[in-house]
Amino acid sequence: MNIYDIAKRSGFSIATVSRVLNGSPNVSPKTRGKILDVIRREDYTPNVFARGLGLNTMRMVGILCTDVSDTYYAKAVSLVENCLRQKGFDALLCCTGSGVDRKKKYLDVLLAKRVDAVLLIGSAFQEDTDNSHIASAAQQVPVMIINGLVELPNTYCVLCDEGTAAYENISLLCDMGCRRILYLYDVLTYSGCVKIEGYKKALTDWKITPDPLLMLRVPKSIEGAKAAVEKLLSNAVEFDAVMASEDLLAVGALKALTAREMRVPVIGFNNSVIAEACTPSLTSVDNRLETLCPTAVDLLVRLLSGEEIPKKVMVPAQLVERDTLHIAT
Amino acid sequence: MNIYDIAKRSGFSIATVSRVLNGSPNVSPKTRGKILDVIRREDYTPNVFARGLGLNTMRMVGILCTDVSDTYYAKAVSLVENCLRQKGFDALLCCTGSGVDRKKKYLDVLLAKRVDAVLLIGSAFQEDTDNSHIASAAQQVPVMIINGLVELPNTYCVLCDEGTAAYENISLLCDMGCRRILYLYDVLTYSGCVKIEGYKKALTDWKITPDPLLMLRVPKSIEGAKAAVEKLLSNAVEFDAVMASEDLLAVGALKALTAREMRVPVIGFNNSVIAEACTPSLTSVDNRLETLCPTAVDLLVRLLSGEEIPKKVMVPAQLVERDTLHIAT
Repeated sequence: MNIYDIAKRSGFSIATVSRVLNGSPNVSPKTRGKILDVIRREDYTPNVFARGLGLNTMRMVGILCTDVSDTYYAKAVSLVENCLRQKGFDALLCCTGSGVDRKKKYLDVLLAKRVDAVLLIGSAFQEDTDNSHIASAAQQVPVMIINGLVELPNTYCVLCDEGTAAYENISLLCDMGCRRILYLYDVLTYSGCVKIEGYKKALTDWKITPDPLLMLRVPKSIEGAKAAVEKLLSNAVEFDAVMASEDLLAVGALKALTAREMRVPVIGFNNSVIAEACTPSLTSVDNRLETLCPTAVDLLVRLLSGEEIPKKVMVPAQLVERDTLHIAT
Repeated sequence: MNIYDIAKRSGFSIATVSRVLNGSPNVSPKTRGKILDVIRREDYTPNVFARGLGLNTMRMVGILCTDVSDTYYAKAVSLVENCLRQKGFDALLCCTGSGVDRKKKYLDVLLAKRVDAVLLIGSAFQEDTDNSHIASAAQQVPVMIINGLVELPNTYCVLCDEGTAAYENISLLCDMGCRRILYLYDVLTYSGCVKIEGYKKALTDWKITPDPLLMLRVPKSIEGAKAAVEKLLSNAVEFDAVMASEDLLAVGALKALTAREMRVPVIGFNNSVIAEACTPSLTSVDNRLETLCPTAVDLLVRLLSGEEIPKKVMVPAQLVERDTLHIAT
């Protein structure tokens, strides 16, 4: 709501409302009282004295991520915060953890702060069955999702084509002669789903029937992934390459393989600092946060200035080759 | 400034100021005008309508860190944000990058938002010669520093005893028989200085003269540290153990050593995810963010409710032993 709405709802002119907000003495106490009643009733709470009139914006964008201690989300938050700051917006950060209830709650927290828009980091924000929390927020302010896909009114997405990246990784490994490719994943978010679909489609195109034993859901930790791959090896389940939905899982697999002196190609996703840190260094899909984040902020700012923007922008991923790709087998 | 200050400065009673802020018609236009003049002049900008009177707080704490994409800072921001949220405070995040000018600027940005307090993450916020930016912020709101030390009025510190940790690491390595211990560091922040002092003091106590060649400043990256250690090895500078001020640097050293099939004990600092990711896994000093962050938030909230709190709380660090400590040499 802005000064025009107050004028409309109170039945007075914009000039009169402006005089009240400015504290001008040239308004009758009765008129002033009526206008302030409307302001209170409609919960109009901008810093009118500081911000001038008609500009009902806090120039503040709410950023929601499930966990900023995750290296991938941290990088995105860092990039987004810097881009927003350059455009003159503040970033109000909420880390929600998982669970739809907490996501709902923190969206409400941000909306109560009268942020101009909400920016969701990662597809972990979506739920399989129920996106009403996002729909309901989008009724109040624009919602921009970075690397997730939600198709609802007033929601916008800037995402990386990870499905094609997964497809291309598998095609590359098949082309190198691999036939039994282990796929490790943790959660089936939107991003998780497109990756596994890309995996299956590539195998099918190579006339390989996907083996359910080779699609392994593991905990999101190095230790968890390592233990799961060790168990697979103990059970004599054979595989000749590994792709993982997250670098952490790929590093866990790498540790299990190294312990048995097994060497097969391994590809991770996210191109995080741990891909560089592990030995052998990890080949990983870069999902282009350096492009996604500035693009998302730029579009959002244009939207807030009244421009029309596309509902969805998708950029290609990029495979960063390191030691684990052409590994001696 | 609150309603009492407005009353005092305008010369009217609190009841009259309250009537103006509530939009009551029982105030003469002249009185109203004078009171609103004071409010504007003093830049009093709380959301009076929404928040009720006398409660001049946004319940918002500004968090400043140099770079939230750094895994250590990201973890601290995540912990602090969650603790603040639990206490009913919002977190306004600013990532400043380095350079005193940007730190000053973003402190001003936060203060202009009327945050209740400022929380600085890490000693990178301090400058060797000039802490006037912190002093000046602390004249307006309390400043809490997590893992840094600034001794100024209205500033408070919760920090980990990294100096003693460095001393104990070196003593442990000396006790294991090491005599030429390489120390890698990137910046001489407060945290950087106490670590190098601990290093020197332990050597002196073991009657070893610190060798300037073995105190090596390197870039803060795996590649940078790796290249520096490779150069040292090429120049035939001998060492029998490594301590690094940051896990990234330790991993770089580890990579240089592994490439030459050299095995010496390596100890990092920060106990980050990359300490677990690298092979062999890295022994690292945990500087107790899980304790520092809740303690800092708890103290800050108590301070804001009018309690007295200690100027400085220091907790001991904890060495997390992994493969690189008792490594076969």
